[in-house]
Amino acid sequence: MYTYQQLQEIVNARLNQQELIRAPEELYEPIDYALSSGGKRLRPVLLLMAANLFDSDIEHLVEPALGIEIFHNFTLLHDDIMDQAQIRRNKATVHRKWNTNIAILSGDAMSIKAYEYLLQYRGSNGARVLEVFSQTALKVCEGQQYDMNFETRQQVSEQEYLRMIGLKTAALIAGSLQMGALMAGSSEEEAGHLYDFGWNLGVAFQLQDDFLDTFGDPKVFGKDIGGDILAGKKTYLVIKALENADEYKRSELEDLMANQGLDPGEKVRSVQQIFRELGVGDLTHIKAEQYYQEALRSMKKIEKDYQEKAPLLQLAERMLKREK
Amino acid sequence: MYTYQQLQEIVNARLNQQELIRAPEELYEPIDYALSSGGKRLRPVLLLMAANLFDSDIEHLVEPALGIEIFHNFTLLHDDIMDQAQIRRNKATVHRKWNTNIAILSGDAMSIKAYEYLLQYRGSNGARVLEVFSQTALKVCEGQQYDMNFETRQQVSEQEYLRMIGLKTAALIAGSLQMGALMAGSSEEEAGHLYDFGWNLGVAFQLQDDFLDTFGDPKVFGKDIGGDILAGKKTYLVIKALENADEYKRSELEDLMANQGLDPGEKVRSVQQIFRELGVGDLTHIKAEQYYQEALRSMKKIEKDYQEKAPLLQLAERMLKREK
Repeated sequence: MYTYQQLQEIVNARLNQQELIRAPEELYEPIDYALSSGGKRLRPVLLLMAANLFDSDIEHLVEPALGIEIFHNFTLLHDDIMDQAQIRRNKATVHRKWNTNIAILSGDAMSIKAYEYLLQYRGSNGARVLEVFSQTALKVCEGQQYDMNFETRQQVSEQEYLRMIGLKTAALIAGSLQMGALMAGSSEEEAGHLYDFGWNLGVAFQLQDDFLDTFGDPKVFGKDIGGDILAGKKTYLVIKALENADEYKRSELEDLMANQGLDPGEKVRSVQQIFRELGVGDLTHIKAEQYYQEALRSMKKIEKDYQEKAPLLQLAERMLKREK
Repeated sequence: MYTYQQLQEIVNARLNQQELIRAPEELYEPIDYALSSGGKRLRPVLLLMAANLFDSDIEHLVEPALGIEIFHNFTLLHDDIMDQAQIRRNKATVHRKWNTNIAILSGDAMSIKAYEYLLQYRGSNGARVLEVFSQTALKVCEGQQYDMNFETRQQVSEQEYLRMIGLKTAALIAGSLQMGALMAGSSEEEAGHLYDFGWNLGVAFQLQDDFLDTFGDPKVFGKDIGGDILAGKKTYLVIKALENADEYKRSELEDLMANQGLDPGEKVRSVQQIFRELGVGDLTHIKAEQYYQEALRSMKKIEKDYQEKAPLLQLAERMLKREK
């Protein structure tokens, strides 16, 4: 079985071999820029790990796996326009380095290129795999739309939030695993278990992300702590805080979050303090742990030895127990 | 053989049957809005006509043909953001009716939906058909990028312009024909001839569009005459005028086109006058006719009776001899 590190190296090496830049350069340079900015390559690695569970030969699946990475980076590129994000992976975002029109159009070309790479898988169930991909890709768009809707909503329920992060984040993780399994000849049932494993893992992963953004160790986390608070994002922590606060605490939190004049550091510390009083950090951990356990139950349904499942299980643990 | 009108009705009827709106509505309503705004349905009809040349049964190809129409409307939707267009088919553009973020994201979902519909073709050469589609779709993006590049360029050569409209407009017409042929069991060679037919026809079509925008009959054309002139577009007419004018006329035309203070009607009439003096209307017609004849030569290479080719040949004539 391949380890995470081995697969990550394989994915990066193959990605570096691609000749992405052709004419017109204004269209293709941003694509190359977005794809060469690093990243964990989590989704293609998951696809290859799922495939490796059913087939020792996964060499021919590296290009299709790159399709997933290209799609993921396409969504980041367009999300960054919508969120007016200035920085991605310590570099200027594409719409800032070039302009919005170029970012829209290179993103469009990336979504087509994603399919082009996935089409390099030529198994007899190729159409089925692409159907799964298209369904997954639409879910990601739906998640992004819900996320945008929530920005202007007063209240978001826990259930609505969990559906949103499921679509926006977990769906592509789940779909990557499902596609990898199907490409390597698994049954639909086995691929479905991997999908469920990925969905639950993805939700747990995002909950952990919410937690770390507020309570992570600044020295380890890599980004400034409190970004979500300052952006006024309705994370799981905010939703649980509003749910559990009494009337007084709730209006204190709402006023604090709406206050644009406050010193950023002070704002973050004050919100952290309320979160601590209400124990929402623990609630987030408990919820993430529930999803993680559900992911493990899905994995148990697949009849493979522990040794064969080890890379996926280790990666899952790493995704959840991470501190950055 | 099906006629244009019959196929257009089939396409529209099938499109109306699609349940496009689901949750979240903010994502799917703009898609329904864009697709129900009419349009000639030229590209799906061309796909079905090309298929009909090789197979009398084209019923199962209507959904895949809708994929082409969805893709075409996706490109219009994103182009309208980039061009800041306010009106499309007498209705507010999506980014104006909703907002830019929604227009970006619904467009993204449409490009995925295009593949979803194309995936409903399940012939043994399905992957080849999708490969042709992806190549075609990338060409459309490249054409749009060149078009944007030309906006800020001082000079554009005739050759560069013809390549740009080839990519932006002709490629999808050509690709639709090629895909239709391949779906209906043609040889690669026959599909290639249809591609060439469509490419040349598409370039002729765009040249005719350039001509009509400046010299069309306002009563017939449906849009205001002179839109390209007022938008400062480097159409074929402008390129030929700058090429054929002496130094004095060239600077007169350049000054005129750069003059933002002029009364629009007067500006259009003055530019028309210079175009007439330089005979660029005729030059455009001659060029379009050359491409049209080249298209017919490609069609001749396909060994089918005139009767079988009649719908395509009649449509081609209609596309070029049209006055609107």
